[in-house]
Amino acid sequence: MTNLNDLPLRDELRGQEAYGAPQLAVSVRLNTNENPYPPSAQILDEFFERMKQAGPELNRYPDRDCVELRTELAAYLTRQTGVQLEKDNVWAANGSNEVLQQLLQAFGGPGRKAMGFTPSYSMHPLLAAGTQTEFISIPRGADFRIDRTEALAAIAQHSPDIVFITTPNNPTGDVTSLEIIEDVLKAAPGIVIVDEAYAEFSASPSATTLIARYPEKLVVSRTMSKAFDFAGGRVGYFAADPAFVEAVMLVRLPYHLSTPTQIAAVAALHHSEQTLRTVDKLSAERERVAVRLREFGFHLVDSEANFLFFGQFADSHAVWQRFLDRDVLIRDVGATGYLRVTIGVPEENDAFLDAAEEIAKELA
Amino acid sequence: MTNLNDLPLRDELRGQEAYGAPQLAVSVRLNTNENPYPPSAQILDEFFERMKQAGPELNRYPDRDCVELRTELAAYLTRQTGVQLEKDNVWAANGSNEVLQQLLQAFGGPGRKAMGFTPSYSMHPLLAAGTQTEFISIPRGADFRIDRTEALAAIAQHSPDIVFITTPNNPTGDVTSLEIIEDVLKAAPGIVIVDEAYAEFSASPSATTLIARYPEKLVVSRTMSKAFDFAGGRVGYFAADPAFVEAVMLVRLPYHLSTPTQIAAVAALHHSEQTLRTVDKLSAERERVAVRLREFGFHLVDSEANFLFFGQFADSHAVWQRFLDRDVLIRDVGATGYLRVTIGVPEENDAFLDAAEEIAKELA
Repeated sequence: MTNLNDLPLRDELRGQEAYGAPQLAVSVRLNTNENPYPPSAQILDEFFERMKQAGPELNRYPDRDCVELRTELAAYLTRQTGVQLEKDNVWAANGSNEVLQQLLQAFGGPGRKAMGFTPSYSMHPLLAAGTQTEFISIPRGADFRIDRTEALAAIAQHSPDIVFITTPNNPTGDVTSLEIIEDVLKAAPGIVIVDEAYAEFSASPSATTLIARYPEKLVVSRTMSKAFDFAGGRVGYFAADPAFVEAVMLVRLPYHLSTPTQIAAVAALHHSEQTLRTVDKLSAERERVAVRLREFGFHLVDSEANFLFFGQFADSHAVWQRFLDRDVLIRDVGATGYLRVTIGVPEENDAFLDAAEEIAKELA
Repeated sequence: MTNLNDLPLRDELRGQEAYGAPQLAVSVRLNTNENPYPPSAQILDEFFERMKQAGPELNRYPDRDCVELRTELAAYLTRQTGVQLEKDNVWAANGSNEVLQQLLQAFGGPGRKAMGFTPSYSMHPLLAAGTQTEFISIPRGADFRIDRTEALAAIAQHSPDIVFITTPNNPTGDVTSLEIIEDVLKAAPGIVIVDEAYAEFSASPSATTLIARYPEKLVVSRTMSKAFDFAGGRVGYFAADPAFVEAVMLVRLPYHLSTPTQIAAVAALHHSEQTLRTVDKLSAERERVAVRLREFGFHLVDSEANFLFFGQFADSHAVWQRFLDRDVLIRDVGATGYLRVTIGVPEENDAFLDAAEEIAKELA
């Protein structure tokens, strides 16, 4: 029996465990920030219609440069943010993870440094490690917000090649103002990646409004996995000056997006307005759940995403288990004293709130 | 206007160009080694049937570990190679490029070396570069075959962490014997990746027969892009000891394979016997085309793949252009004096042979 340790694995991978939230079979799954609403019949109909056209060509490689998909993404972003963007501003890949990995390959790598303000999206340090980029973690300030003074001091001290700003932040849900983002852009010696995976759930303006002013520095990454009910489709993207698209094309794997993936994403984008109505429902539910959680005595960060970060717990993993014992799966992101719950459909949120109320009484 | 050179790109990427064969609109496309036959109606019907079931769940992340797909791939490989393999022996990703990139991240990287016998698949050195792995290129011997003595001497001299053996080799089509592969396995201090992207076109035995004997060293990579009429589906995979699957799970991006991609691949695998009948047709056509090309006076490498490597030309790029001028797109892989042509349907091969006959006369 061969053991993983018998293989000539890179030293830094030894003893590591594979990343990923538990995929458990429970009634109420509120752990991975998906949109709980299924794609509409119109999206699926259009997908099938287009796949019927494309099916007999599946023996051919997909469009390597994903031109139609990038054109649709640019049109969507233009509608959603008010910033005029063209396909040459947009790049797409298998989830924002692959988009970010490509950016790290081009602008990070050995001898280079990335900086993030933590707790934040836990894949950022993992993607840095996977591309041999040193990751510098700067703790967030009061109520998990980025502290402007600390951030600028850390940039001056470490001169990072890449700065990550996640807004709304995962797992906390808070938004970083465009003023602070612009201060970071001015101070950063390299590039700044603003990760807007949850932007559609927020009324705050997008950092895409700053691309024209910082074309050599700013990349705004997004995903169809969250607001779009399209996590299974696995499409992430970024908007930036066209030079950034040229840069990632030097490191992207050719034909990285399959034909079915490209077609499904285009169909989903054609019906984005309909889909985004579910986002309004989820934002309203978020406010309803937040009010109740505060009534139960929990502390919450103000969230503009489709999840809430709540605490404080002496032993957050034990509390996570109490929810799971009640058939409600939420996320222990490893942040001391806090847990994250995704906003689901009203019935799921009710089930979560029932469990939360019981647990609050037990902990009191 | 921001230029790529204005960005803080990694030094080694400056001046590079994006990889990829020209995607030109011509009548006869024989440049990317796809299977020219479209997927059968049965495959597409099953795909639609399964997507109708899965469509309402597209808002959920895909199966992160691709269990059904890996189970089907293992069953297929067991049928095709006669070697009993289970899902724990098999790993899948977006094309063999992603599979190989993951292996390089886990077993290559900074301070480590990969070795290949060139000319071979041109993505191997690019994937090494993308993962900061040094690539050592050892020229093939007579008639582009791996020279056993030279190969073992090079391994002794360089101690590569990873050795690539492509068999049938791309772009030459020749097969490396299991005896030489076993000699390399014995000599190699690290891992050996046998890239069998074109194995289905060959009657020679697969290196999967050696996995049980070299569990700590051997990985056999494969793809659905070639023999399967499924290049648009973008699924590559490997077979190895389960410890290798554990290893790549440490570096893989979570949820890397979309739901539509996983479903399409499973549907294609359910009808593999039907698909592989087209492989027999293509192998027969390869022999027919080879005979004619030799009659025209070209030199050919004996090929067991779905392409032929032919020459010799004083200026192979000029000859490539002569084919394109006749609306026939073949591949200039950059090997001095030779060009590669993919075997298409009989009408495409006839068009290619007509052009080749004319060009042979012009060059005479």
